[in-house]
Amino acid sequence: MIPTLTDIRQAAERIRPYAHRTPVLTNDSLNQKVDARVFLKCENFQKVGAFKFRGACNAVYSLSDADAARGVCTHSSGNHAAALALAAKLRGIPAYIVMPDNAPSVKKNAVAGYGGLITFCAPTLEARESTLDRIRIETGATVVHPYNDERVITGQGTAALELLEDVPDLDVIIAPVGGGGLLSGTSIAATEIKKGIRVIAGEPEMADDAFRSMQAGEIIPSQNPKTIADGLLTSLGSLTFPIIQQRVEQIVTVSEAGIIESMKYVWERAKIIIEPSSAVAVGVLWERKIDLRGLKVGIILSGGNVDLEKLPF
Amino acid sequence: MIPTLTDIRQAAERIRPYAHRTPVLTNDSLNQKVDARVFLKCENFQKVGAFKFRGACNAVYSLSDADAARGVCTHSSGNHAAALALAAKLRGIPAYIVMPDNAPSVKKNAVAGYGGLITFCAPTLEARESTLDRIRIETGATVVHPYNDERVITGQGTAALELLEDVPDLDVIIAPVGGGGLLSGTSIAATEIKKGIRVIAGEPEMADDAFRSMQAGEIIPSQNPKTIADGLLTSLGSLTFPIIQQRVEQIVTVSEAGIIESMKYVWERAKIIIEPSSAVAVGVLWERKIDLRGLKVGIILSGGNVDLEKLPF
Repeated sequence: MIPTLTDIRQAAERIRPYAHRTPVLTNDSLNQKVDARVFLKCENFQKVGAFKFRGACNAVYSLSDADAARGVCTHSSGNHAAALALAAKLRGIPAYIVMPDNAPSVKKNAVAGYGGLITFCAPTLEARESTLDRIRIETGATVVHPYNDERVITGQGTAALELLEDVPDLDVIIAPVGGGGLLSGTSIAATEIKKGIRVIAGEPEMADDAFRSMQAGEIIPSQNPKTIADGLLTSLGSLTFPIIQQRVEQIVTVSEAGIIESMKYVWERAKIIIEPSSAVAVGVLWERKIDLRGLKVGIILSGGNVDLEKLPF
Repeated sequence: MIPTLTDIRQAAERIRPYAHRTPVLTNDSLNQKVDARVFLKCENFQKVGAFKFRGACNAVYSLSDADAARGVCTHSSGNHAAALALAAKLRGIPAYIVMPDNAPSVKKNAVAGYGGLITFCAPTLEARESTLDRIRIETGATVVHPYNDERVITGQGTAALELLEDVPDLDVIIAPVGGGGLLSGTSIAATEIKKGIRVIAGEPEMADDAFRSMQAGEIIPSQNPKTIADGLLTSLGSLTFPIIQQRVEQIVTVSEAGIIESMKYVWERAKIIIEPSSAVAVGVLWERKIDLRGLKVGIILSGGNVDLEKLPF
């Protein structure tokens, strides 16, 4: 079932006790720099530092008590794993997380810190999927995919819902696209709430599988993507792609330089820490490949998890 | 005249069209780390990136039209100069800024970018004061001191006013102290709005003149302070000191390591960019020299102006 606006509104109620209602910030310097009126939806301030908590939380709290008791599981080494672990901890149920054994220790520690039960495996997709399958069968836990899951898509849509409650007259809404969970949820919320609003995605030039998928009319898998925006390496999913095809005006690619420049500019001027994946959305305005001058533009800043010891500037 | 709560409320109305009402953020990790419920008043998101805009804006808009037409002037190389330049620009009047000729170019550019009319002088206090005096006589501009000025103190108090509107039941409010403009304004607002609230200041150990002044009962000038918190190098003023003596419970000194650690922690967990002077206030909780466990603690984050090329971590 494709999620509806009603589903998203119900998800907003469901996660309200657990998720932050993140603020929307504006910045005069940024507005002048990009010739638009920009509204930054700060999911970098969300629990676990990323919008991913919305979808994971909605999935965990959508489960029946009987299903929930057996726990949830996923394979991920990123923000989704941390988000699922925290949501499960809040509900008091186990979260089984499959991670490649070469994952950075900072990511292992984050998941473990939220109480996630980690199983390491070889760093291949086959090993991750077979390990997850074994755990699912052994425990009866419910698999929560990072993006190709209706409950997750619905949860991610709540960020745009809140943004449009705060700024109802947006002309455009921009989100980054990786697997498409945030983008598809955003596009449903935005186009259902406000007819005629333009939904645009930012994607790294160096990981432009969604851009190519839209042109081809079918999912083109991501192949050896190399971008600083490490949250956007995945391919679109069977659930997210059709929603994006139907509701997203276009996908705009952003260069690595554009990502880094917009990231630094937002840090310096807006005084907030955003990760490169967030900067990809800002980069759509920054590089001016499309003309959004004079418009009211909402940007979903996806997260703020960066290693301060390894900054690109 | 010592500013009153009524003055601060009037200042809040006066600056409302120009200043940001900054958000108050909370962060679970920080709360757990310091065993308190912390409310961060984000003046790092204020215009020019610091609370200084409140006082400068209040001073500029307090002037009669006739006085305003002759402009304002100050000697400063920091946030106050930028704040005064922007406030003057908004009112459409000149701001004459005296800066030492060895000021970093980033600071010169900031002031010039807001339209400030800069006069350079030798980097001594005598040269700064005599140059300012000459400009004042030549132009008839009104001097706006960075902190020893009722209009400035009153404007700075509006941050605490807003914080207590958002979180009325705070037990404690912490601000950093340099010249004492923010601290004195904060202490008036807080103690008048909520009887019994505790006002505590954070000060760098390496620039502990306010701490020593409180012990001595008289202003001890700052001598060769060496701290990363470059906004807190100045001595208390004749207006700010008596207010602080009367209304501030105590001044707590914070080590350089404590400043850097708390700054990095806030960046990593709260995803906001704060300057070292802001971290001095957080450091009061961080170093636990006094027991604030279990309390609701408001912190005025003074600003977010840092050079991203020269981070201390």
